[in-house]
Amino acid sequence: MTQGVRGTRDFYPEDMRVRNWLFEKFHSAARSHGFEEYDAPVLETEELYTRKSGEEITQQLYNFEDKGGRKVALRPEMTPSLARMVMARSGALALPIKWYSIPQCWRYERTQRGRGREHYQWNVDIWGAGGIEADAEIVSVLVHFFRSVGLSSEDLVIRVSSRKVLEEVLGSLGVTGGAFSETCIIVDKMDKLPAEAIEAQLTELGLGPDAISTIQSVLGIKDMGDLEGALGSTSEAVSELGSMFSLFESYGIGDWVELDASVVRGLAYYTGPVFEAHDRAGELRAVCGGGRYDRLIGTLGGKDLPATGFGFGDMVVMELLRDKGLVPDVPHGAQDVVFGMGAGLRGAAMEVASAIRSGGRSADLVLEDKKMKWVFKHAERLGAERLVMVMPDEWSRGAVKIKHLGSGEESEVPFDQL
Amino acid sequence: MTQGVRGTRDFYPEDMRVRNWLFEKFHSAARSHGFEEYDAPVLETEELYTRKSGEEITQQLYNFEDKGGRKVALRPEMTPSLARMVMARSGALALPIKWYSIPQCWRYERTQRGRGREHYQWNVDIWGAGGIEADAEIVSVLVHFFRSVGLSSEDLVIRVSSRKVLEEVLGSLGVTGGAFSETCIIVDKMDKLPAEAIEAQLTELGLGPDAISTIQSVLGIKDMGDLEGALGSTSEAVSELGSMFSLFESYGIGDWVELDASVVRGLAYYTGPVFEAHDRAGELRAVCGGGRYDRLIGTLGGKDLPATGFGFGDMVVMELLRDKGLVPDVPHGAQDVVFGMGAGLRGAAMEVASAIRSGGRSADLVLEDKKMKWVFKHAERLGAERLVMVMPDEWSRGAVKIKHLGSGEESEVPFDQL
Repeated sequence: MTQGVRGTRDFYPEDMRVRNWLFEKFHSAARSHGFEEYDAPVLETEELYTRKSGEEITQQLYNFEDKGGRKVALRPEMTPSLARMVMARSGALALPIKWYSIPQCWRYERTQRGRGREHYQWNVDIWGAGGIEADAEIVSVLVHFFRSVGLSSEDLVIRVSSRKVLEEVLGSLGVTGGAFSETCIIVDKMDKLPAEAIEAQLTELGLGPDAISTIQSVLGIKDMGDLEGALGSTSEAVSELGSMFSLFESYGIGDWVELDASVVRGLAYYTGPVFEAHDRAGELRAVCGGGRYDRLIGTLGGKDLPATGFGFGDMVVMELLRDKGLVPDVPHGAQDVVFGMGAGLRGAAMEVASAIRSGGRSADLVLEDKKMKWVFKHAERLGAERLVMVMPDEWSRGAVKIKHLGSGEESEVPFDQL
Repeated sequence: MTQGVRGTRDFYPEDMRVRNWLFEKFHSAARSHGFEEYDAPVLETEELYTRKSGEEITQQLYNFEDKGGRKVALRPEMTPSLARMVMARSGALALPIKWYSIPQCWRYERTQRGRGREHYQWNVDIWGAGGIEADAEIVSVLVHFFRSVGLSSEDLVIRVSSRKVLEEVLGSLGVTGGAFSETCIIVDKMDKLPAEAIEAQLTELGLGPDAISTIQSVLGIKDMGDLEGALGSTSEAVSELGSMFSLFESYGIGDWVELDASVVRGLAYYTGPVFEAHDRAGELRAVCGGGRYDRLIGTLGGKDLPATGFGFGDMVVMELLRDKGLVPDVPHGAQDVVFGMGAGLRGAAMEVASAIRSGGRSADLVLEDKKMKWVFKHAERLGAERLVMVMPDEWSRGAVKIKHLGSGEESEVPFDQL
């Protein structure tokens, strides 16, 4: 019975240290921008996710009926929970709100591809600010994080576009509303599925060969001039994206961002700017993605509120950080190891450990009879700074022997000066 | 659709700040004693919990069948996951291990009593150390936490006993093995159920009136002398508990602990010392509880390993802390609020915010056109230290105006000195 549920991870202390290091960088980047942490339950009602848009995330819902017959799900993403929380306090929140969270999210695939069933996803969102300033601020959080872990704009690129690009193109072809969302979800799979499969799906939606070819051509655009050429000088998408790139310059993150009209994101609810971060080498899946979703609350039965944000999983970025050798060797954390020589000094060692801990240092206490050699090896394995030895002669003088493990220096310290 | 799943909690930023404050005290107490953090998935296989002992915790399992027909459960407690992780690394772990975690745990009651279905439970455990020194160390972690949040031994008492007390009494009555565990679980409900109900359940287990009366009398003991009188001077329970109280003195926590033979704990797997912390006023449920469980791995099909630990929920302690006025007013956390006066200085404000954030301070940037009055109120609400204003005259001189919100003092600071 040593197996956990398939697709889940155990975090042993050495794994947890790395996870905590990563999460602390998430916290720190969000807090540096004045974001506040929130949390919601991992279990939500199923109806929160039942959008009918062919999204992978809702198709792979980890849902079930509880013993009371209620349809519930382990959350596949955090945004609907956030929307629920915002709706519940509708009118009572001082807008805009800038919130973040690091929830665990779940999926269930019927076909087993050996992929994980859970991951942690850093979520950073602004609600109640409709301008592109909020979208740029979100991207600034992202770059702050990347820099804080030692990644540079030579390692990563943030590809930016807007749902309005496709909206304008499809609008001119007469595709709007639900068909628009569905087209976005199909188009998002372009780099994962063969061109014929994409074309077949778009044809099924009612798009003709000319329309499909127009879409493909626009999605290939990576230059503002070309975009203006395709959408016209009065295009809202063009003016919005132009302004955004200028804000990125103000933030000093211009080298991290690029226009890429092929970015549409695979969730139905996006309405404006969208972006994805990718490794420049192109070896990994998207590191994170996000965008503006001003009409999500409406689909949940509430009154719409502008919103923008991103989700950032813990798996891909860790692959990248490992590849680049940027994962630090996080030490155990105990500053002192306290050891009483012999059972007769066990109580004394407890007194000593208590004094050290009350003084604000962390101290691991050796709880059993161990040989000196074991104790040294143990202190070394923990990366402790000091070994505090409670020994008969020293203790009879009311003192302990302290060895500084870095320098090897030893000294006798009176108990009351610990 | 603003309702979450019944019995679950949302954590809005103001709730999350308090939760983070509490959890940081958990982390800090465990780390001060050299414990390392670990984590396991919230979803486990059901068989990890299907002990047949009449425990409330396994009766209220939040279990279900997943889409692949596998029986899984949201964990009701962390210890079985920990046992699974230890078993999976059997032989490869440097023992003893001192590990802690703050998992969310779940229960499902068929009868609705308005109780929560999830809570967070701080778990602190030592595996691989069979002596009572490990049990005493665990209790020391507990007291370290209580002191760190401002609670004293006048607020709380840790009631200590040992499963060996009942084991010796019941052994002399011929009750051993599974019947012993079941008796413990019944006896644990003594303060919740009427005496007749307890007696009826014990009778059902095959205990006669004399046996029941012996049990009741021993469980009333709160004094080491009386315990020795009841169990005899060669009793292992007596010598073990006597030594433990002496170790508590060494730790300097003697005023926090009391012998109370009525403490048995409602889980089947305990084998040695057990304890519970209660508010002295006796108004709340147990704040936490734990003890030694040397034979848990055996029941899961592995090779037994000595283990001791406690579980500490986040709900009861928060009630106590609120009653005592010990919950601090945790501030928002943003040090600066940056505001650009007018749309023309929006980009400049972004430059300023970026410079401040790169320098290691947290800065909330006002993203929309707001009146000066709103900005002041906003900065006050956030508890910010400084309001950094990007204004036309100052900015034309390459400077910003900074108002220190505590003193009200204002100064002009050049951009390159931010």
